[in-house]
Amino acid sequence: MALDRLIEGIKRTGNPTVAGLDPKLEYIPGYIVEKAFAAHGETLEGAAAAILEYNKGIIDALADIVPAVKPQAAYYEMMGWQGVRTLQETITYAREKGMFVITDGKRNDIGTTMEAYAAAHMGTVRVGSETLTPFGGDALTVNGYLGSDGIRPLLEVCRARDTGIFVLVKTSNPSSGELQDRLIDGLPVYRRMGAMCEAWGEELPGEYGYSGVGAVVGATYPEQLTELRRELPHTFFLVPGYGAQGGGARDVAGAFDKDGLGAVVNSSRGILCAWKKEGCAPEDYAGAARREALRMRDDILGAL
Amino acid sequence: MALDRLIEGIKRTGNPTVAGLDPKLEYIPGYIVEKAFAAHGETLEGAAAAILEYNKGIIDALADIVPAVKPQAAYYEMMGWQGVRTLQETITYAREKGMFVITDGKRNDIGTTMEAYAAAHMGTVRVGSETLTPFGGDALTVNGYLGSDGIRPLLEVCRARDTGIFVLVKTSNPSSGELQDRLIDGLPVYRRMGAMCEAWGEELPGEYGYSGVGAVVGATYPEQLTELRRELPHTFFLVPGYGAQGGGARDVAGAFDKDGLGAVVNSSRGILCAWKKEGCAPEDYAGAARREALRMRDDILGAL
Repeated sequence: MALDRLIEGIKRTGNPTVAGLDPKLEYIPGYIVEKAFAAHGETLEGAAAAILEYNKGIIDALADIVPAVKPQAAYYEMMGWQGVRTLQETITYAREKGMFVITDGKRNDIGTTMEAYAAAHMGTVRVGSETLTPFGGDALTVNGYLGSDGIRPLLEVCRARDTGIFVLVKTSNPSSGELQDRLIDGLPVYRRMGAMCEAWGEELPGEYGYSGVGAVVGATYPEQLTELRRELPHTFFLVPGYGAQGGGARDVAGAFDKDGLGAVVNSSRGILCAWKKEGCAPEDYAGAARREALRMRDDILGAL
Repeated sequence: MALDRLIEGIKRTGNPTVAGLDPKLEYIPGYIVEKAFAAHGETLEGAAAAILEYNKGIIDALADIVPAVKPQAAYYEMMGWQGVRTLQETITYAREKGMFVITDGKRNDIGTTMEAYAAAHMGTVRVGSETLTPFGGDALTVNGYLGSDGIRPLLEVCRARDTGIFVLVKTSNPSSGELQDRLIDGLPVYRRMGAMCEAWGEELPGEYGYSGVGAVVGATYPEQLTELRRELPHTFFLVPGYGAQGGGARDVAGAFDKDGLGAVVNSSRGILCAWKKEGCAPEDYAGAARREALRMRDDILGAL
């Protein structure tokens, strides 16, 4: 099962974190952007080329110490199809370096359309007599508002291709409670969605006690994290909101089980912009990302 | 406001429908696929080229009688970045022909990430000194599970760029009720989401009484359609589920106001596969799509 591969990466590196690849142009050192513009002009192609070179530097710097990356689809789509090509090239590059890739697309739809998303992001597609891999990620974030019809089409691809999903349960943003905290028969929506993850996951049991159906639970809601960890013993957590959004190591501690497993904590801006915060030479941006990733690892392990 | 442009298109054509461009390879006549494979091989590029030629034929056949198209992002992503390029080219082509383009991506995220999706699909992006248009649709479908943080970033782009959104409220699939029908303080989730659309829409008032924040409400739930039409007087409806999913003209009638406005009904497979159902020559696939679009128009107008 795919999340077993993630868990093995976490064990191998001793690091339960994931680097979010959310590359805005302003995060990228000027010399990389200028080189890309010189080659391609101030175009979507140029922006996409800058992002790819930047990402490769980050991946090279992290591959032996961080088990996973999480590219956020929005920042690639923002650069048009050229940016989406960079997303695919980033995924391929990270996987070649042995990293687990979680495509953060929060996709959702039903039936054959959801099958198309599954094929796109985690599976294969048949073209004539060929079987091709459109994006080839290891896991995909998804939104469960449409119910089981939006999730079941993914489970088959997960089983066949050894990939996994993370369903939005309790998101890290301030307004997440507008719907997610409201009570249905005495139970908040997020706990119902969590229970659905646990149920869907029964079809994808894993070797380490966690299924192939994970949940997104924000670091900014530590009490809910702890509560959900207790309630959902087979559901692995992807935890955004550490760092820039305000979550600290103590806030995420409740996401982990007694063996220090059960969750992977994401940092995007903290790692991507470490070179700006450090004030190091722009050429050392990847080194700064590595130093921040190690600091984050030690910060979180210290709180467990 | 963007939905005003959609409404004007509906008035101009006398047709409150939208053609869903959900092109699976098996919908496309063999001669188009073979030509694309001959030029590009059995590759993602070849599949994407076939889809583009097919879409252009459909658009040419519908542009004077159907006001809008709704490309479903999943079917383009399924063909990798090459497919996503075809999505962009399809959007551009349809807009050149005067059609309103609703990109069906059901995107959702928060803050700057949602801004990135808005820029990608409905706005512009700054690259160096250039302002570029990544995809350039007129409206985007979105999922409101994350609350206002996931919707507000879109409203600014809608205002600046004269575009609109459709928020998932009551989806057409059998399991939509698992979450959407559950009661929160006596009111089902879908009605709460509908009320949020009505509130968000206050920031984007339109000339015809409908705001720039629309709602997706499935044709397969006619009672809820009628109930929501009454409750949400300023929210325009995008209605999937007509035809292949089982909804008929009488089922969608409740989505309309007394002036015959207030909703646009989608058909995807019914139009795209009309040539197969008709059994006409494959070369006449676009003609069959036109005949089916006219039949659908008359079917729906007849029920109002």
